Amino acid sequence: MAAKTLESLFHDTLRDVYYAERKISKTLPKLARGAQSPELKAAFQQHKEETDGQIERLAQVFELIGKRPQAKTCAAMDGLIEEGEEILDAYKDTQALDAGLIAVAQAVEHYEIARYGALKSWAEALGMTDAAQLLDATLQEETATDEKLTALAEASVNQQAVAAE
Amino acid sequence: MAAKTLESLFHDTLRDVYYAERKISKTLPKLARGAQSPELKAAFQQHKEETDGQIERLAQVFELIGKRPQAKTCAAMDGLIEEGEEILDAYKDTQALDAGLIAVAQAVEHYEIARYGALKSWAEALGMTDAAQLLDATLQEETATDEKLTALAEASVNQQAVAAE
Repeated sequence: MAAKTLESLFHDTLRDVYYAERKISKTLPKLARGAQSPELKAAFQQHKEETDGQIERLAQVFELIGKRPQAKTCAAMDGLIEEGEEILDAYKDTQALDAGLIAVAQAVEHYEIARYGALKSWAEALGMTDAAQLLDATLQEETATDEKLTALAEASVNQQAVAAE
Repeated sequence: MAAKTLESLFHDTLRDVYYAERKISKTLPKLARGAQSPELKAAFQQHKEETDGQIERLAQVFELIGKRPQAKTCAAMDGLIEEGEEILDAYKDTQALDAGLIAVAQAVEHYEIARYGALKSWAEALGMTDAAQLLDATLQEETATDEKLTALAEASVNQQAVAAE
């Protein structure tokens, strides 16, 4: 086995986030179908498109380091998706469903913000400028998605859930 | 079974984060022992103290809603801790270990930032001012810890890992 370096850590984490993004891409249509408010449905559908672009960027980063795109099981993302399915099931047909779905989606975004933040910082330390730029582009998108979900929750979804009690 | 409302979502998520914090409190001493740099060891030890204070705050929030503190398995946190143990094992005695531990710790912080952000926002929507203040105090600490870890990685840990390659 090759010695473990910052480059191996970068590669391992890239595989982790590649797994995570592909899993998210498969899950977002399910969240969009489950969501009650048209705005939240639209936000999930839009983020599905965005996620597919992010997967494409990850493939470019793999190419930059001369590796083929490969996924590595990410137990944290499996756990997050499991929590999302629990919410879909337990809060089905309730006014609190959208609030719960937004919260799970934000936990997913924050996982990605942490991962892309580390990857970008390692790419910079390793002098990989092109990779750092690609990773930063996705990091900005994930941060914007998180902020959009907060705004949606606070502008309408939470109040609708309270009004229904 | 009682109807599922925003209040039940608040309670379910409180139990999720109570489980997560207790698991983190048990794991931090292991990360502190594993970390190579004295600064990172100290940061993990300090965050262990802070985490115990956060568990105490959660107990106060349970009291405010008239429930006893109770944990609910959080599959996402189990997954994150599993990833941390993988790093400790796979990067043992390498110069990239600290960079890997910081990244996992930041993924943990971001999970908590997402959870406390949602809980605080729901507490406000439900008119629970005291609970919102307690949750916000922890949210500020988690954000500060995340920033401290970024600074530590970028000021020294990443560069030391690169220099060792």
